Amino acid sequence: MTLHSVKIDVDFPTKIDQLGACTIASPVRYRQFTSNHERVLYDADEKRLARRIATRRRVISFEEGGPREKIYFDPKELTVGIVTAGGLCPGLNDVIRSIVHELTFNYGVHNIKGIRYGYAGLNPVEGWPMVDLDSNRVRRIHEDGGTFLGSSRGPQPVETMVDTLEKNKIQLLFTIGGDGTLRGALAIYQEIQRRGANISVVGIPKTIDNDINLVSRTFGFDTAVSEAVEPIRCAHTEAEGALNGIGIVKLMGRHAGFVAANAALAQGDANFVLVPEVPFELEGPKGLFAALQKRLKHRHHAVIVVAEGAGQDLLAQDAACDPSGNQKLGDIGVFLKQRILAHFKQQQVGITVKYIDPSYIIRSVPANPNDCIFCVFLGQQAVHAGMAGKTGLLIGRWNNQYVHVPIASAIEQRKQIDPEGTLWLSVLEATGQPERMVNET
Amino acid sequence: MTLHSVKIDVDFPTKIDQLGACTIASPVRYRQFTSNHERVLYDADEKRLARRIATRRRVISFEEGGPREKIYFDPKELTVGIVTAGGLCPGLNDVIRSIVHELTFNYGVHNIKGIRYGYAGLNPVEGWPMVDLDSNRVRRIHEDGGTFLGSSRGPQPVETMVDTLEKNKIQLLFTIGGDGTLRGALAIYQEIQRRGANISVVGIPKTIDNDINLVSRTFGFDTAVSEAVEPIRCAHTEAEGALNGIGIVKLMGRHAGFVAANAALAQGDANFVLVPEVPFELEGPKGLFAALQKRLKHRHHAVIVVAEGAGQDLLAQDAACDPSGNQKLGDIGVFLKQRILAHFKQQQVGITVKYIDPSYIIRSVPANPNDCIFCVFLGQQAVHAGMAGKTGLLIGRWNNQYVHVPIASAIEQRKQIDPEGTLWLSVLEATGQPERMVNET
Amino acid sequence: MTLHSVKIDVDFPTKIDQLGACTIASPVRYRQFTSNHERVLYDADEKRLARRIATRRRVISFEEGGPREKIYFDPKELTVGIVTAGGLCPGLNDVIRSIVHELTFNYGVHNIKGIRYGYAGLNPVEGWPMVDLDSNRVRRIHEDGGTFLGSSRGPQPVETMVDTLEKNKIQLLFTIGGDGTLRGALAIYQEIQRRGANISVVGIPKTIDNDINLVSRTFGFDTAVSEAVEPIRCAHTEAEGALNGIGIVKLMGRHAGFVAANAALAQGDANFVLVPEVPFELEGPKGLFAALQKRLKHRHHAVIVVAEGAGQDLLAQDAACDPSGNQKLGDIGVFLKQRILAHFKQQQVGITVKYIDPSYIIRSVPANPNDCIFCVFLGQQAVHAGMAGKTGLLIGRWNNQYVHVPIASAIEQRKQIDPEGTLWLSVLEATGQPERMVNET
Amino acid sequence: MTLHSVKIDVDFPTKIDQLGACTIASPVRYRQFTSNHERVLYDADEKRLARRIATRRRVISFEEGGPREKIYFDPKELTVGIVTAGGLCPGLNDVIRSIVHELTFNYGVHNIKGIRYGYAGLNPVEGWPMVDLDSNRVRRIHEDGGTFLGSSRGPQPVETMVDTLEKNKIQLLFTIGGDGTLRGALAIYQEIQRRGANISVVGIPKTIDNDINLVSRTFGFDTAVSEAVEPIRCAHTEAEGALNGIGIVKLMGRHAGFVAANAALAQGDANFVLVPEVPFELEGPKGLFAALQKRLKHRHHAVIVVAEGAGQDLLAQDAACDPSGNQKLGDIGVFLKQRILAHFKQQQVGITVKYIDPSYIIRSVPANPNDCIFCVFLGQQAVHAGMAGKTGLLIGRWNNQYVHVPIASAIEQRKQIDPEGTLWLSVLEATGQPERMVNET
Repeated sequence: MTLHSVKIDVDFPTKIDQLGACTIASPVRYRQFTSNHERVLYDADEKRLARRIATRRRVISFEEGGPREKIYFDPKELTVGIVTAGGLCPGLNDVIRSIVHELTFNYGVHNIKGIRYGYAGLNPVEGWPMVDLDSNRVRRIHEDGGTFLGSSRGPQPVETMVDTLEKNKIQLLFTIGGDGTLRGALAIYQEIQRRGANISVVGIPKTIDNDINLVSRTFGFDTAVSEAVEPIRCAHTEAEGALNGIGIVKLMGRHAGFVAANAALAQGDANFVLVPEVPFELEGPKGLFAALQKRLKHRHHAVIVVAEGAGQDLLAQDAACDPSGNQKLGDIGVFLKQRILAHFKQQQVGITVKYIDPSYIIRSVPANPNDCIFCVFLGQQAVHAGMAGKTGLLIGRWNNQYVHVPIASAIEQRKQIDPEGTLWLSVLEATGQPERMVNET
Repeated sequence: MTLHSVKIDVDFPTKIDQLGACTIASPVRYRQFTSNHERVLYDADEKRLARRIATRRRVISFEEGGPREKIYFDPKELTVGIVTAGGLCPGLNDVIRSIVHELTFNYGVHNIKGIRYGYAGLNPVEGWPMVDLDSNRVRRIHEDGGTFLGSSRGPQPVETMVDTLEKNKIQLLFTIGGDGTLRGALAIYQEIQRRGANISVVGIPKTIDNDINLVSRTFGFDTAVSEAVEPIRCAHTEAEGALNGIGIVKLMGRHAGFVAANAALAQGDANFVLVPEVPFELEGPKGLFAALQKRLKHRHHAVIVVAEGAGQDLLAQDAACDPSGNQKLGDIGVFLKQRILAHFKQQQVGITVKYIDPSYIIRSVPANPNDCIFCVFLGQQAVHAGMAGKTGLLIGRWNNQYVHVPIASAIEQRKQIDPEGTLWLSVLEATGQPERMVNET
Repeated sequence: MTLHSVKIDVDFPTKIDQLGACTIASPVRYRQFTSNHERVLYDADEKRLARRIATRRRVISFEEGGPREKIYFDPKELTVGIVTAGGLCPGLNDVIRSIVHELTFNYGVHNIKGIRYGYAGLNPVEGWPMVDLDSNRVRRIHEDGGTFLGSSRGPQPVETMVDTLEKNKIQLLFTIGGDGTLRGALAIYQEIQRRGANISVVGIPKTIDNDINLVSRTFGFDTAVSEAVEPIRCAHTEAEGALNGIGIVKLMGRHAGFVAANAALAQGDANFVLVPEVPFELEGPKGLFAALQKRLKHRHHAVIVVAEGAGQDLLAQDAACDPSGNQKLGDIGVFLKQRILAHFKQQQVGITVKYIDPSYIIRSVPANPNDCIFCVFLGQQAVHAGMAGKTGLLIGRWNNQYVHVPIASAIEQRKQIDPEGTLWLSVLEATGQPERMVNET
Repeated sequence: MTLHSVKIDVDFPTKIDQLGACTIASPVRYRQFTSNHERVLYDADEKRLARRIATRRRVISFEEGGPREKIYFDPKELTVGIVTAGGLCPGLNDVIRSIVHELTFNYGVHNIKGIRYGYAGLNPVEGWPMVDLDSNRVRRIHEDGGTFLGSSRGPQPVETMVDTLEKNKIQLLFTIGGDGTLRGALAIYQEIQRRGANISVVGIPKTIDNDINLVSRTFGFDTAVSEAVEPIRCAHTEAEGALNGIGIVKLMGRHAGFVAANAALAQGDANFVLVPEVPFELEGPKGLFAALQKRLKHRHHAVIVVAEGAGQDLLAQDAACDPSGNQKLGDIGVFLKQRILAHFKQQQVGITVKYIDPSYIIRSVPANPNDCIFCVFLGQQAVHAGMAGKTGLLIGRWNNQYVHVPIASAIEQRKQIDPEGTLWLSVLEATGQPERMVNET
């Protein structure tokens, strides 16, 4: 479900930092420990691999996740912190729960602090005391969506945050969040390095858009796609029930249209999918309006699925045109609705537009079973990495293995749909929409 | 689930019109025919009944629905029309299907016309040919939400519509729709009477708001309440996950807050329910803002469920205050969101507001099992009434029986929540909201 | 959804017993108290009522439920017990929660004991201490199916039970359970009367089969019908996917087939519905096998929905025929499966039978929104009745009102499907099954 | 979710057979064709790869799937057959639909035959004519579970089947089915080779158990795990509601316990998971009974999830012990229930056992969104392979790519849970069950 297009000729660091030597025997009852030498190839394509070997270029690979035989932190003395930040995403509570379970039952760590409301909870000015976590406290949290620790957006002063960690003797910090949170985690990690502090930072990437680089799948994405199916069906029902009915569904996807593309594939009622990766125009013989008009003529109804980040150039253009000079950059869904209404009014074609924005419903539900299981493993892997003293990394999934990815590498760029790849071509087939809704010049 | 407050001292016509004498033996295989003399009491309260009898006032009762032993129309020669109009509502397709099944299998009627896109389909200018319906055509339509015949809003010229009926030899018209549709049906019925035409009009009331007078329950309402539960839960999740998070869910209910009240009862996460029947103010020591602020102080999050028709006086006031004189009457949900943001900004209290408008999702889903069954019976009852030559009526549900209600009586006023009754008091208990959010003068 | 056939010429006691005079002002903030003189007519049929009045027969009516202005028990000194017994049913936790909420928030009662594992919890020999209940303890119990107090079947010595009540100073006992539980409640009530003890017993009827007399609807039934839809669909899918596939679904309904009949109506895939109220034969030209064979010939697949209490005479017969004399009375679903396999094997017709018994899944789910709301009201009504010192009654729903029904009257007989009524005739239509699968002699 | 344990030192053929040279330009509008030289590494572990290269052992890789620039069959002249065989599995209709869509819209193939009821439809004796398929016929089939073509089990004479293919001029056969179906496909392929016929055979592996070798994921598995969650929750509710309640849920998994293990991880209520890969004993200090008794003592309830293929040695033993010599090999779920009842009766411990067998419900539902999308891609890949004249292969998923796997290699052995791997260890953690329920000797 999570197709990505491997861009092979890039090169990026994959080496994972380590606080120090691991000297403590792992209390974990696993019989199959993973050594630090196990690595998972970045690219499993044989031909490209052979070429790399032949040309003596570096073969890129990731350190494999898993329990280490020797660990760095003494479970009895360790204090752990867990923070969730950024927008809600199905599975947040599952990951928290898995981390607490793994720390408690497998490593015997019992000092676990839940940090409230994102990085705000690391800033004493905000006044949110940490909460003690144990297996009893997290027993049923996964039945709810959202994060029971609370979340917030935006940065906090990095020195203050590290001060708070030190004051609370937190030596292992798990940050669960998206791009912004990972940047925050990187800043914390760098400040720790600057201080030479003995604190490890492990990220679990969270993006409902599934757009984090070097990570083939993020938790919550599968649930989001599943939940997006129903609103598209409803948009179709509304469109079919009205004269020249047009249903518009706005889905997540600020920089990548994976949710929109996958939901459209899963459901089959969408006639147009608009994503950030594929530019489109409204006017002109090849624009969206013309295609829409053609569709209405033949079928009397249409469904448009639009990712929130699609058509940002149109919004910008629109804002620029505004004589008042007011910045009106805004919601592509509402924008589309208004422009479509205006266009067909001008054309004197009677239409009905129904606009659905289900984002808060989609992102607030509990994780589905597939994501539940995924979150169990992510939490376990994060604890394994953290207990082994690794730092500045996040837990990724690559070629069906859990791997360690340097945070710095992961946030360098974003993962996006390849407009020439199978995912997008399947969407074009499923919708029947024109390949390019752009008027060549 | 569908509590209503019987207002007993009203008086209204309950006599059902009849096209003419019933002389044809019913082909229905029922062994228990219902006679025209069976009547269901309007008020099953013994004391009030005794008082009426004692004071020689008329005891109000409805004609009971059911198959008649003799029918008016000859099934072999009859042509039937079915029209759906107004907004979507779960169960529309179920009712159509039940009517077609009953006509076909029990009465042997085989000329059934589906009228497209509401009353527009009765206006030749609109250019929508009717579609032939049979059991095969409707076999699986109930698996979809909406109406496969299409719908539209707004009136059409009544003479044109009756002309179309006559031209198509339609002698029995089933209209499935809400208040507006019933008014249209009444107009058609009156025009038919004026012409002395031999056409019967039978309504099946459709209102997702459940606000039709003299009808204790309408189809789709149970489904709507069920579907409203999830968005409220999501609003709660969003509110809990953010600092001073406020989740607002707008639900159906233009004149009556039954959906909002019942959904809040079913779910339990709502802290404030705002309905058209209970006025409220925003400002002042007893207003919504003060109550909200108190709630945030204690619990740091709040959920507001608002019926679309609530607080219309506030919107009007707001519009009046607007110096530009522009009419800004609009969406109470968006209005609340903006006003709450402005209020707390002024108070310098940081809050997060998440606004969810799930209406198109709620009303577009297929009927739930409870409504499915209800629609089966409504369709059967409508056909029984129509085949017996009854006209100008709708099929109601009263005191656990199906009854015939004159359309004119049903649209005289609306059903609303009684602010002193058990339903609303249970809502007050469940939410803990103040009984009156109005500053006395 | 819960059609019943009113059998009008029966006569039964409707007078409710009362522990003593009500002298305490109700602390309830309701403004609309219900007086003991409000009564709801048993039969809302006008003609039958007129005949009764004319012939001077007693007009039967129920005492209406609701909060009384004066109450019997002093909230500050009262100790309440709650017990759930019998099989699981969706909504048990909702009713417990509603009782606790109403006692706490509206009446100010704070001594509430949860009795563990049904009547076993009233027998000290079993060793289950009671648990203290308050609003915090029951806050989220309704999210789970089942009963968090636990349940058990079977009677306990009635003297011991009343001893336990007296020892624990419980003066108000709520029993939530079905036929057996109500008989137990009646025994307790009678023992209390014998002793002249100051204890009130209020029942909330629980039967997923919806077969309790004088009660038009019981909680959990709507959920059960909804949940039964999916297994029938699956049986249909299995049947269609196989050569001469026969899907059999066994549903609840020991003495009444309401769940099977309603689920078949809601879903539409069932070709045969077998219920306790309608006898059928297997063999012979009019038997089930012949009808099934005809169906397979035309459509190559068939779905049978069978209530667990259907065809008990066939099972008995089968047992009697057994030469070993072993009693083999058992499961009608398994019996049907085996007999159908044997029949078609003998006929040398290849068939595939898939048997689904979803009972434990259906009855264990949480209540759906409709039942949730219903349970809120049932709990409130039960508390109103109990606080007013009423005893030996259960809370019923009749003609859209909550009423008080003497337990003794309710358990006198069972409610069943009327084979001549609309519900069953609609089932015959929906399935197309023969009206009588019995070979006349 | 689909963890497998790569057993690396095995060696197996990966070369794909080809009917002949591809000379026709592909009509597909893809711009990124895949060449036959693209290969996906079997093992993406860097260290093992380096060792293989160093020791000059063959580096195993699969041919990558995808559209070829030149194809073998002329779309205008080609006739295609599609057959589904074996037990039902969510997604069958989705795969059929995707194949038909891809053939029609992308390749312009219009002669597509649906073969009825598995391989029986290829045996004229059975008398099932093929059905013509086009995009209209398959438009909504994915909304239903099962297979609309019908299925059957068991082999048919291979010569007859190939005769039927030749007689119907079918040159490209898609077989969708599990182990048995793939063996059938292999036999057909070999018979075709023997005859030198110009027919290609492409398999899409179907196993709800996810136990096909060299295929990391099969369609329907994700849906099955999702659906298994609810019955486990119900078993837990039943167990908790009764005195010493034991809930037993039997899930799919004849040779591999992936469904049971994943469902237990996703849900969290299971206390014991029994799978074919991990032997267990009932009696003795380390057996299941002892562990169960301990659990009941502490928690008064327990949930057992058992894969249908678990404990087959116990069943065999039981059968052997039977003095009558009758083979009683049978259902592990029923067996467990009976043995547990007997054990605790002997121990004079009162227990309640509730046994749930949801298999037919789980496997009959429509595919969930995740599987829907997966099936779209599987169908496309199968068509690409078939049109390119490849034969004797199945479409696999490996290291996040679609690959071609020789049928012969895939059916050589089965994929199973590694009892030392992370999946099983996570199950042990989640359940808290003993690592080995075997009494050492």
